[in-house]
Amino acid sequence: MDPVGADLPQSQVWAGVGAVGYAAPISTEGVVQPRLTVLTLGVDDLRAAVRFYRDGLGWRTDGIVGEEFEHGAVAFFDLQPGLRLALWPRRSIAHDAGLPVGPASATEMTLGHNVGSREAVDDAMARAERAGARIVKPAADTFWGGYAGYFQDPDGHLWEVVWNPAWELGP
Amino acid sequence: MDPVGADLPQSQVWAGVGAVGYAAPISTEGVVQPRLTVLTLGVDDLRAAVRFYRDGLGWRTDGIVGEEFEHGAVAFFDLQPGLRLALWPRRSIAHDAGLPVGPASATEMTLGHNVGSREAVDDAMARAERAGARIVKPAADTFWGGYAGYFQDPDGHLWEVVWNPAWELGP
Repeated sequence: MDPVGADLPQSQVWAGVGAVGYAAPISTEGVVQPRLTVLTLGVDDLRAAVRFYRDGLGWRTDGIVGEEFEHGAVAFFDLQPGLRLALWPRRSIAHDAGLPVGPASATEMTLGHNVGSREAVDDAMARAERAGARIVKPAADTFWGGYAGYFQDPDGHLWEVVWNPAWELGP
Repeated sequence: MDPVGADLPQSQVWAGVGAVGYAAPISTEGVVQPRLTVLTLGVDDLRAAVRFYRDGLGWRTDGIVGEEFEHGAVAFFDLQPGLRLALWPRRSIAHDAGLPVGPASATEMTLGHNVGSREAVDDAMARAERAGARIVKPAADTFWGGYAGYFQDPDGHLWEVVWNPAWELGP
């Protein structure tokens, strides 16, 4: 059933992804590529969330778009190539998926933000705090040899800022 | 407040993910790069979650590692270059961050999986269903001109499989 199966090395599954850029193969029959293209965070106050990421962290966005549609108001941020962050009200997610609105729940996921040094962890944590983040766990050495801290955005989503000495981040 | 307002069609809002390689710069002082490197999903049953993503969706992993450490057991999957998925018990996230364990809450986020055609949406939804996903919303036309469906993984995390005709995914 699977033209590309679990026995292929990952490097072959991703064959064609190269220096020219993001060129993940399109799903073919029966195959779900390991790929996340948009991470949408549920928010309670869209304008406050945009202020945090845009004005607080300094991330670029065209602001809130789609307000002409019911449940359409959303803000997008480009993360690394091939991945976007969206902020969308929890009630809009619920409406679109046909699910009840759930409570904020910080242990649903963590958003890992790897950086290249201990100093960069400290800098990012300080910037987040100035932006109004709740510092959940100040940066400290981890048991596995890294250095990391946690903060929550205005909607309680949990970011972990991490320096991992074993992880090459590229140029 | 919003430099670009409601006049852009949603399909254009979703277009334009770059075609350059992954070369996000390292954070420098006071700057937080817009970057997500690891998305960690909180799970209740790590082995069941690994079975879903590895055996069900066919995503490659070295399986559960770190079991020698208390709260260390985790499984990693490579997504597109520069991004990893981790599965980690909710109770381990809570322990590591020093927060109480929260309830499963599907509206905390959606995980967008863009594909290149309507057929690829149908294929991915079918594969997810065979893997044991709960089909929350069968794939259907969207108001903005695309085609999308939602499913939940065994821990209730909400994936949206999307075809957006305005979004070039590459070859």
